[in-house]
Amino acid sequence: MYRSHTCGELRISHVNSEVTLAGWVQKTRDKGFMIWIDLRDRYGITQLIFDEERTPKDVFEKAKTLGREFVIQVSGTVIERESRNKNIPTGDIEILVSGLKVLNSAALPPFTIEDNTDGGEDIRMKYRYLDIRRNPVKDKLIFRHQVAMQVRNYLSQQGFIEVETPYLIKSTPEGARDFVVPSRMNEGQFYALPQSPQTFKQLLMVGGMDRYFQIVKCFRDEDLRTDRQPEFTQIDCEMTFVEQEDILQVFENLTKHLLKEIKGVDTDRFPRISYAEAMQKYGNDKPDIRFGMEFGELNDLAKGKGFNVFDAQELIVGIAVPGAAEYTRKQIDALIDWVKRPQIGANGLVWAKYNADGSFKSSVGKFYSEEDLAQWAEATGAKPGDLILVMAGDTGKTRTQLSALRMEMAERLGLRKADEFAPLWVVDFPLLEWDEETERYHAMHHPFTSPKPEDIALLDTEPGKVRANAYDLVLNGNEIGGGSVRIHDSGLQSRMFELLGFTREQAEAQFGFLMNAFRYGAPPHAGIAFGFDRLVAILGGQEIIRDFIAFPKNNAGRDVMINAPAPIDKEQLEELKLEVRS
Amino acid sequence: MYRSHTCGELRISHVNSEVTLAGWVQKTRDKGFMIWIDLRDRYGITQLIFDEERTPKDVFEKAKTLGREFVIQVSGTVIERESRNKNIPTGDIEILVSGLKVLNSAALPPFTIEDNTDGGEDIRMKYRYLDIRRNPVKDKLIFRHQVAMQVRNYLSQQGFIEVETPYLIKSTPEGARDFVVPSRMNEGQFYALPQSPQTFKQLLMVGGMDRYFQIVKCFRDEDLRTDRQPEFTQIDCEMTFVEQEDILQVFENLTKHLLKEIKGVDTDRFPRISYAEAMQKYGNDKPDIRFGMEFGELNDLAKGKGFNVFDAQELIVGIAVPGAAEYTRKQIDALIDWVKRPQIGANGLVWAKYNADGSFKSSVGKFYSEEDLAQWAEATGAKPGDLILVMAGDTGKTRTQLSALRMEMAERLGLRKADEFAPLWVVDFPLLEWDEETERYHAMHHPFTSPKPEDIALLDTEPGKVRANAYDLVLNGNEIGGGSVRIHDSGLQSRMFELLGFTREQAEAQFGFLMNAFRYGAPPHAGIAFGFDRLVAILGGQEIIRDFIAFPKNNAGRDVMINAPAPIDKEQLEELKLEVRS
Repeated sequence: MYRSHTCGELRISHVNSEVTLAGWVQKTRDKGFMIWIDLRDRYGITQLIFDEERTPKDVFEKAKTLGREFVIQVSGTVIERESRNKNIPTGDIEILVSGLKVLNSAALPPFTIEDNTDGGEDIRMKYRYLDIRRNPVKDKLIFRHQVAMQVRNYLSQQGFIEVETPYLIKSTPEGARDFVVPSRMNEGQFYALPQSPQTFKQLLMVGGMDRYFQIVKCFRDEDLRTDRQPEFTQIDCEMTFVEQEDILQVFENLTKHLLKEIKGVDTDRFPRISYAEAMQKYGNDKPDIRFGMEFGELNDLAKGKGFNVFDAQELIVGIAVPGAAEYTRKQIDALIDWVKRPQIGANGLVWAKYNADGSFKSSVGKFYSEEDLAQWAEATGAKPGDLILVMAGDTGKTRTQLSALRMEMAERLGLRKADEFAPLWVVDFPLLEWDEETERYHAMHHPFTSPKPEDIALLDTEPGKVRANAYDLVLNGNEIGGGSVRIHDSGLQSRMFELLGFTREQAEAQFGFLMNAFRYGAPPHAGIAFGFDRLVAILGGQEIIRDFIAFPKNNAGRDVMINAPAPIDKEQLEELKLEVRS
Repeated sequence: MYRSHTCGELRISHVNSEVTLAGWVQKTRDKGFMIWIDLRDRYGITQLIFDEERTPKDVFEKAKTLGREFVIQVSGTVIERESRNKNIPTGDIEILVSGLKVLNSAALPPFTIEDNTDGGEDIRMKYRYLDIRRNPVKDKLIFRHQVAMQVRNYLSQQGFIEVETPYLIKSTPEGARDFVVPSRMNEGQFYALPQSPQTFKQLLMVGGMDRYFQIVKCFRDEDLRTDRQPEFTQIDCEMTFVEQEDILQVFENLTKHLLKEIKGVDTDRFPRISYAEAMQKYGNDKPDIRFGMEFGELNDLAKGKGFNVFDAQELIVGIAVPGAAEYTRKQIDALIDWVKRPQIGANGLVWAKYNADGSFKSSVGKFYSEEDLAQWAEATGAKPGDLILVMAGDTGKTRTQLSALRMEMAERLGLRKADEFAPLWVVDFPLLEWDEETERYHAMHHPFTSPKPEDIALLDTEPGKVRANAYDLVLNGNEIGGGSVRIHDSGLQSRMFELLGFTREQAEAQFGFLMNAFRYGAPPHAGIAFGFDRLVAILGGQEIIRDFIAFPKNNAGRDVMINAPAPIDKEQLEELKLEVRS
């Protein structure tokens, strides 16, 4: 061992002990006759002292040559510090150094290895191994490990078995694009990397595994939007002989357990709302309910009052922004500009101040009386001092726009608190959604999702109205998990493939093994998958998942540290019988 | 919930309870007026009874229609069994059924779902989801989960952090062939799937993570020999500020912990032998030491006695097979045929019986006196009643051949006991091995392995003699783990790449990021990786790893269940700018 203790371990009780430490030089203060060095490792920082009078001369001289991030080993005596540092656990002591060995020198790092670094995102990604030395990054990786351990131990205690499913599987055209892997041994053929272990976990249920989980990497070759990764981690789960209610209970308990163990937060029974209600109340199927500002629909109140702009619209809907009645004209104009930005795309914004004195002032005061506006206040839940913001237009688009505004206002008002956790279930999702581009139905969740039994009759007549036994777990405005009761009947599964536009041959080629499996005694089963990267980020009080991934890729899918992807040797391509077209 | 209890749960104390069970029909016995059904789920088997007099008529009739592997839900009363079955935990009770629901029917399975099935390997792989219903397969998957949990919890308690490293990395020409993944977003470029997270774990050490582990999938596109998988699982570990001794201790303790917790076996301190000694004593760098039969070298004893065949040979070496002196001439001839098989390739076998009465009889008795043979017995450790088997030839080849014979004899004599565990460390591996084909040195472990400091001077003069700080953990004749102290000096690392035939440009292109990382304060570090599939198999008392993998691939790298790999759509190839050459 290079050390007797770590740099986070020594306390006042160790005074007079002879110790050996190893670590990185965080900081040097050289007063000529006295040198202090902060020695750092994963566990903390310990102050070293080199004293011209008490430290051997050669050691003292060598200490003067140490630069930032040098790796050293020191031996010495633990002594009490004159001026204690209350900010660190080792702050009561320091090491009077008698021996020093330089284990490795270090070039000047391209950014400072401090909690608040001077390095920008790009340079920190290129030198990610240096970035990881910084507490904010290191702590996030340790936190991720702790969450994973909690998940595994909890599920394992509940009888779930972690089963490793294969990474080299078969490409399926449904859903997002697959990454493919050419097979050398099977010329002209390809494996695909799994977008999820969906079919395998269902086969495990057919195989009687009863309760399965896996923390597993998944892959999607999508054009990367901000904070999406081509490889991401899922907590993948499946259960047999269960109904939707059982899944909600088991995984609500998992989530409660994590919030309790990791964050020390107790949570009540999670609210449940239907997809339809979520859209109506929040304009969003993953509402952030840490704050109110629920939508109030104003169609009945706002039409037919002479304001033509409203009369023509499908939906008129507003929110009450708490305490914002004192917004200036300029502030409100800025909000109007904000909703008109192309990212939001609204035509405008109607506002009504519900003043603290109970009076109203509105951009459409010409058309609406104080009594009218008082009704608006009631519908939106506005109280004196609030600002009512109203949008109008097509139902879908308007809800999405008002939802964006709701989130923006909450952000501005500091209502999205990182240490507050408001989970809820969104249930009763539509089974299918119509895609204008391909002019066919797509599975909203995936093709294995079971319709609600009472809606099956609608499959022939109004497929768009069929609700699924599908559910999302939403936490603080993020979908952290989603799943469904699966189809376990091969007939119904064939019918689903038909509805989704598969020919019999396509369905057979892609999912023949699954439909075949269903012929041999498939049990009722259901499952859920959590986005582990996001779950960890949200539990960590943040929303950028990249920070919680050891070696993330950038928005072009590149690992800038190792410079991948990269061209490969001609020989490799030849062995694979592949040619790159220019 | 579809059930109030599992099929493994009910005991005599539950008698008179009303219960609901769900599961698969394992077996039906229909006596006309009485039907018994064994209902199976992951947790066990419960006997159901349908009685013409006590069961509702419609339920009784429906029970008659149930086939093997039908999925059913039953409700009824727990009653005491007349003839108890001591072989199963639920054998004291049965369920008098009052309600029956068929949840799914089942086609006749292509093989019997019994512990001893009539299905061959191929059909069971094609219908792996049915194979998993069988206890021997299901239990192995659960066992694997339990081992993984033990590993994770133990290492976590020892301060190791599980960090997920990326799967989409960069191809390196060193070592085995990579699987590659074409990048759509970066035309003409490829990711590679990791053969191991080697460089990433070293970067984590440079990043100060101190103690890292990961249970992780790795990929090698090798021509598959028996029981190799293109994707396999590793327990990957790395530590900072440690020497070889620290690694051996930490992972010896992990292995002891597993043997204790999983198998209930206490083990002493693991023996350690050098690579040179392992080769000399066992002809093998992963010796099975559950039994003796150590090699005895006979050069000094067997040369110059008039037996010309021996005089010309580099090595004459024998083993004493316990209790085999009574082998017949026919049995010995069969052994001689066995070693002459092309897989072994020996020219022949000299034998000497050390009879129970103390006399000797030998195939070369003409040349060697009883006194000579008594010396052979001493050198090989033979006792009266043993059979001495001797081979001769080039050192390397002969050792390998005699090692194969040693293992074969142990197998025949039943000395390789599945419930006995004999771990040992093999240390001091050569750093390099000469490859005749490419006429250059290859890294015996990998290019990041540190030479022993005392051997560094030999790098220039006799590279083949340089020993590495590398070690293997061997259990029952299988390498279950291997690792090394790493080079942490960029100068020494460059020199290694040079020795391995890399040009400066190649080394820079492939490992530039690692050598660059070493410039910024790389700490001394070392690590180890366990082959998790094999470890689990050996702990499970078996050697076929495929049985411990949920969805293994066959020897052609195919998943015959999902039929992968497979051709992909033309559109996919076009998006990737790839062409398959015919």
